[in-house]
This record gives sequence, structure tokens and C-alpha cells, in this order.
Amino acid sequence: MSNKQKRYILSEEDIPKFWYNIQADMVNKPMAPLNPKTKEPLKPEDLYPIFAKELCHQELDQENAWIEIPETVREMYKYWRSTPLVRAYGLEKALGTPAHIYFKNESTSPIGSHKLNSALPQAYYCKEEGVTNITTETGAGQWGAALSYAAKVFGLEAAVYQVKISYNQKPYRRSIMQTFGAQVTPSPSMSTRAGKDILTKTPNHQGSLGTAISEAIELAQTTPNCKYTLGSVLSHVTLHQTIIGLEAEKQMEMAGEYPDIVIGCFGGGSNFGGICFPFMRHTIKEGRQTRYIAAEPASCPKLTRGKFQYDFADEAGYTPLLPMYTLGHKFAPANIHAGGLRFHGAGVIVSQLLKDGLMEAMDINQLESFECGCLFAQSEGIIPAPESCHAIAAAVREAKKCIETGEEKVILFNLSGHGLIDMASYDQYFAGNLVNYELKDEDIQKNLDDISNI
Amino acid sequence: MSNKQKRYILSEEDIPKFWYNIQADMVNKPMAPLNPKTKEPLKPEDLYPIFAKELCHQELDQENAWIEIPETVREMYKYWRSTPLVRAYGLEKALGTPAHIYFKNESTSPIGSHKLNSALPQAYYCKEEGVTNITTETGAGQWGAALSYAAKVFGLEAAVYQVKISYNQKPYRRSIMQTFGAQVTPSPSMSTRAGKDILTKTPNHQGSLGTAISEAIELAQTTPNCKYTLGSVLSHVTLHQTIIGLEAEKQMEMAGEYPDIVIGCFGGGSNFGGICFPFMRHTIKEGRQTRYIAAEPASCPKLTRGKFQYDFADEAGYTPLLPMYTLGHKFAPANIHAGGLRFHGAGVIVSQLLKDGLMEAMDINQLESFECGCLFAQSEGIIPAPESCHAIAAAVREAKKCIETGEEKVILFNLSGHGLIDMASYDQYFAGNLVNYELKDEDIQKNLDDISNI
Repeated sequence: MSNKQKRYILSEEDIPKFWYNIQADMVNKPMAPLNPKTKEPLKPEDLYPIFAKELCHQELDQENAWIEIPETVREMYKYWRSTPLVRAYGLEKALGTPAHIYFKNESTSPIGSHKLNSALPQAYYCKEEGVTNITTETGAGQWGAALSYAAKVFGLEAAVYQVKISYNQKPYRRSIMQTFGAQVTPSPSMSTRAGKDILTKTPNHQGSLGTAISEAIELAQTTPNCKYTLGSVLSHVTLHQTIIGLEAEKQMEMAGEYPDIVIGCFGGGSNFGGICFPFMRHTIKEGRQTRYIAAEPASCPKLTRGKFQYDFADEAGYTPLLPMYTLGHKFAPANIHAGGLRFHGAGVIVSQLLKDGLMEAMDINQLESFECGCLFAQSEGIIPAPESCHAIAAAVREAKKCIETGEEKVILFNLSGHGLIDMASYDQYFAGNLVNYELKDEDIQKNLDDISNI
Repeated sequence: MSNKQKRYILSEEDIPKFWYNIQADMVNKPMAPLNPKTKEPLKPEDLYPIFAKELCHQELDQENAWIEIPETVREMYKYWRSTPLVRAYGLEKALGTPAHIYFKNESTSPIGSHKLNSALPQAYYCKEEGVTNITTETGAGQWGAALSYAAKVFGLEAAVYQVKISYNQKPYRRSIMQTFGAQVTPSPSMSTRAGKDILTKTPNHQGSLGTAISEAIELAQTTPNCKYTLGSVLSHVTLHQTIIGLEAEKQMEMAGEYPDIVIGCFGGGSNFGGICFPFMRHTIKEGRQTRYIAAEPASCPKLTRGKFQYDFADEAGYTPLLPMYTLGHKFAPANIHAGGLRFHGAGVIVSQLLKDGLMEAMDINQLESFECGCLFAQSEGIIPAPESCHAIAAAVREAKKCIETGEEKVILFNLSGHGLIDMASYDQYFAGNLVNYELKDEDIQKNLDDISNI
């Protein structure tokens, strides 16, 4: 324990008024997404049928480094932002490290995770252009919960396709979405052609994100005044999440420190980019030496063992082709409890940055993630989401290195959400029922071979 | 939506350094708790075998209005305090009321409720006097979770007896306690004489708070270096909770307003007293006109339909006799989902204040509480605990009165916790499975007759 300041919170007038678009500052820009049929680079207009127009432009914007946050969204952000930047004295003491560990506590959002940062602007832009209904998919339900609330805020009807196995395993998150007034359907369902096709072939199909995406897109395309929304991977989602890092930058200044290492867990890349990109602009523009670590599950190692190439974002192959690190869109990740990290590919920006050596990736196995999550819970009092446990594990690894070297490195990680709805996963961990999933090289190669002709 | 400030947060140096002990300022002091055998007033020493000494003195202190918060506890408070004071613009808009509604958001504690405010000092004082083990009981588990974490912070072993029906119905809260390293036992259990007696007679007994208290006290008394702790009702618990109202007072000043009405839900009285007493001192000392409303469940109406007299705090009659509004210690409350409000009596301070007309009570039935809780969730984004829904319902009633009168009353209520672990209760509400429990006068009178000779 120390008498020094523990938490740093910005006054409402200091909450950033612009999101940061790193694409504008990148020396090597991300390669263009392609129309899968014509192989032509996508233009914003090509995305209009699916997403709100403003989001289509944000997705492909490589010009403007700063995008103004609409005032209405800023007013909503005030409901819980700034989130606290917290010095993890408890964790430092438990580790006996000379490192200074900070975390950005996104779990204090009403929804319990960072997802609301993008759900609100996505719903807002839909509302602005006269949309009345929005759809999305969700796995564990963090994104679905955020979108359901955001829809309610702007008076939109929300339809969420939740992966069936999660729908049944995590009834609390389904209830949360229903409390906010959303229509929640287990996917695959009989409500879409995509769902019917699957269920006709495999009546007991337990669902996947790929299937749920297909259903949500189909519903959006067949419903008047309806748009689709996505919770990660895409560049506009990451753009909205930069509010995390922009706040953290100001808060680190309040603490009188600057991070040597910035860490985020990695699913599609939006929470990682959200905390890292605002710091990375100083690396790109001023050559500031900072390490950026993406903590991904060892069972879904697209960054550490995947291949950089064009691939689809969904299993069925309906989406545009994205230039990304991927395990192949048919890759079926093991059933780890960090449901939010079970995605085969990385966003296009992060993929380019990794290729260019501006960031690094670390693979964390499931048991290590929960071990570090429990250490964090006992020392800081917050039970972290299984996804966030991966960022904690990476921070712990780096903090332990400082014990050996004696360095007082400043480590910052994003606590993307709390795990209060995931206690069943902790139960399984305590009961000794969780395992690490070892991926064989040939299993990875098989999926990569399948996409080598794309 | 408005461009005005939404949240008010204190800087760490402005977090109060003293708790407020209203007993010192009360004109009519609470009557003394009595030894049930001798009927003599209790002295602090009489409580030493059960509680940490400092807590025994705080319990009976009618002299000192301000009790210094130990520095170690203040340092821990910084982990999440101050909690935000929030202007509920969303709820105001949903209601169309001219009232200004504020809530103190205690749900942002790592544990998700106000309970940690007292768990930490209780564990601290135990540690200070060389205690190694602490015990407690818990119903739904909010208190047990807070105590488990507090014990871990101070290196104490915690044993929690959880009411068996809750242990089975709310596995997530049990998991949270276990994540913090506590030993959790469903009560009644075979680990105590009290538990064995009950199970021998009634093998399938589902437990009650009264039984769990007996087991926890027995374990404390038969274990070396072990003390018992309690999460509400007692005056020292309410003392610790005054941090809520003391912060709120400063935050209301930041907002440039002063509450006309202060509201807390009511179980044993600690969260109600916590938010109200700091404001009430201005009523007592300066005659400031403010209404204080305790929102209790209509199915457990000790304040609105109970009787002021000496009674036991537990069903078995092991505790000292307390002068309180009570429904009789044998009163079995209906199985409402606000488990934290199912207690037959009110703390001695609140009981005296109600008797003296310094505060009022309002009974809220279960369906109204969930209806208002859902309205709050949809307009403010936070799913409230079923207990907190009662405070919200009272605030909504008062805000609706302002629609009729046009008055811009300032209403402040305590959001004691979030309901993310209680989603099964919301599910039951949505499914139409919840009912209101109507209590007949004769049922209440029967229990009161039973204690008329105490």
C-alpha cells in the first residue's frame, strides 16, 4: 500500500472530443479490402447497403487523423467516461516487481466492458440517417449487450443473433440484452435462409460467430430501414475505441509517467488498437520507443502463427476480402472461455502494423490467463473478464522480467471488462476442468492451404 | 440529453477522512441494547468475544460525532472511491419530470455494491488486534463477496455461511467469494452444533439468515483468533457507510444543488443510513428541511407495519435484545428477489429516528420495484440490484408527483449495487412469474404477539 494517488479520472471537459484515426499517420497504409467477386478495391459506397454511411467512410478513411466525436455521443460518453486509470499497487506488491503497473478500467462502463464506446456511435449514425432497426451478432454477449443498450438510447429496435451455445451457457447476458429491450435469437435459427440451410443439414448445430454474422447481415438486407453493426475487427470500430488510449494518455500525464509497454488482449483488434494507437502515434511520428503487445490466446494464434494474406471475415465467405493475419476463415477455434478472442483473423490496420514491426504479439494459454486473472482479482478486487485475463497475463510476464532486471518499467494494460457474468468459467478453472489447447502446425497449415488460392 | 455535467467525482484528497456518527447529534439517543438474560444495558466489553474491540466501541459510541477512518482503510477506499454522483438525465427524460434526480453510484465498487465500505474496516480492525480468521453469514452474497475480498486484502482467512437456497440459486456469487479465496459453506451445515440440530430435525432445510448467523457466531466462538462480522443492521456498519452520504454532500455542492429528498432502500438500514445521515445532521442541527425516505419491500414492512420494541436480531434468539421496529424475530419474509431486504428488524438508530419523525418509510411491492428497475436500466444503462430497485421506485414516485405540481425538486437516491448477478430474477420478472406478496394484518400481529413478553 502506498500513500500515492491510486486512480486518475479526467474532468468532463477533458474527455477527448476527437477519435484518432491511425490510418492517416501510417507510413505503409493498410491494403484495400476487396470485392470478392471483382477483386476490385472497395469504395465506401460498396458498404452502404450494410452499414450506416458515415461508418463506411470512417472504415476506409486514410486521410483524416482526427475524426470529431458527435456531440450527442460525447454527451453519452459522460455517463461513465472518463474511465479510471488505476495504478495497480496491489498487483505490484503481490508480484514483488519494481515495475509500475497501470490499468485502464473499462469495466466501469454500465455494460461492464469497452464495447459501449463503439455501440453508441454506431447506433447514433444509424439513427441520424433514418434507420429504424439494427442487427448484430454476439458470442458471449458483451457486444450484444452494449448494442442493445445503445439501440434503446437512440430509439432503435435491435435484433441480436447470439451463438446458440452461448445463448444457452450464458443466460445472464441474454437477460441483460432483453432488459434493454432487444430481440435475442439463438443462432443458427429458422428466421433466415442462412440459418435454415444450416439447421436443415445439421439440426443440432450449436452455432458460430460466422453463422451469426451471416444471419444478422441477411436480416439487415431483407428488412426495410435496417442496418448491420459489428463489434470488432473493422477499422471504424477500432477508431471509436481510441477514446480509451486518448484518455489514458492524458491520465498517464496526470500520473507523471509514460508507458514503456502498452498491452491489450486481442480478438479482432478493437480494444487493443483502442488503447495502443494513440500512444503509437508518438512512435510513428516522433520515434518514441514504446512496445505494444497484443495478447492473444494460444489456441487462436492468428498473430503469432497465422499468415498475412487476403481472407474472408466470416466462415461462409460472404464478406469483403480483408488483407489480414489469419488462420483461415474455416478455422474452428477451441472452446476456450475467452469467447471474445475466438476469431480467426485480425483487423487490417493491426495486420499491417504487425507486418511492419511496429507491434508484437504474445500467445497466452488458457490456464496461465486464469491464474493471472485470479491473482489480479485477489490483489485489485476486480474479477476480470476471461478475455482481459490475457492482457493481465502479458503484463505479469513483463513485470516479472523487471524483477530479474531491476528495471522500473511502466506497464499499461487495458482491463477491457469485468468477469461477473463469466463466473461459470472461473468455477470450471477452480474445479480443474480447464485445459490448454495445443495446436499442431499441420492443423494450422491445413486451413491456410485452403485459402492459399484466394 | 443536456450539455450540462453528468457525473461528479471527488479528487482523492477530498475523500472524507472521518465517518459520521449520528448518535452523537441525536436529541433522543437510541435506547441501549440489552443482555437478554440480565436485561442489563450492554457495555462494549460484553461484545468483545464476538466482534473486534474497536467495532464494539463504535457500536455503542454516543459521544463522538466524527470517527477517524484509519489511513490503511482510506488508502483502500481510493481503489474505487469516490463513487460517482450522477445526474439521471435519462431517467428524468423518460419520466418527463421537472424534478432533478441524482443517484450515488455505489455499483462501481469492485464488488458491485456498497458492502465493501464496511467490509474493509471490519477486516482491518480484526487484523489490527491479531485476529487470523473471520466468519460471517450471507444471503444473496453481496456482503459475503465484499467480506471475502476484504479478508484477502488483510491476509485473513474467511469462512462464509451462505443461506443454502441462495448458495444453490446464485452460484455466481459463491464463485466470486471462492475467487477471493473464502471458504463458503451452505447453511444449515453439519459443521456446527446449530446446523446439526436443524439438519437432524429437518434434513432438507433450505436455510435462513437467522440460521446462518447462528452458525457463523458459533464458528467464531469455537475457533482461536476468530471474530464474527456482520453486513448491516448494527450501528458500526452504518457508521462506515456514511462515507456514501459524506461524499454525496460534497458532490451535490459541486452540482450546485441540495437534495429536498434523500432515498435509500431498506434492509437492516446501513445503506439507508449511509446516504441519509450526513444530510440529516443539517436537519438535526440547523433545522434544514429535507425528507428522508426508507424504501422497504411491502412483503417485509418492519418500518411501515412493524412495532417498536425490544427484539432479537436472529431467529434463534442468540443475540442481544435490540430496541427496534420489528415484525418479530420469527417472521419469515416471502421469497422476494431482493434477498438483501428480507430481514425482520431495523437498526436501533433508524428505529429511534423513525419514532421521532425525522424520517419516513415507504413500502414498495415487488412488481413495482422491477418495473422501475427496468425503466432505470433502459434510461441510464445500469441494471440495478433488486434491492436498489426499491430506492428507484420511491424516487420515481416522488418524481411523478413533481410532474403534477411542476416542482423542480432535487431527489437523491443511493444506487446500492448493480444487478448483473441477479439476472435470473429479471428473467422471472419478464416471464411473468413474479407476484406481489400481500401480508394480512393478522399474520403480522401473530408474530408481534409472540414477542410481546420480551
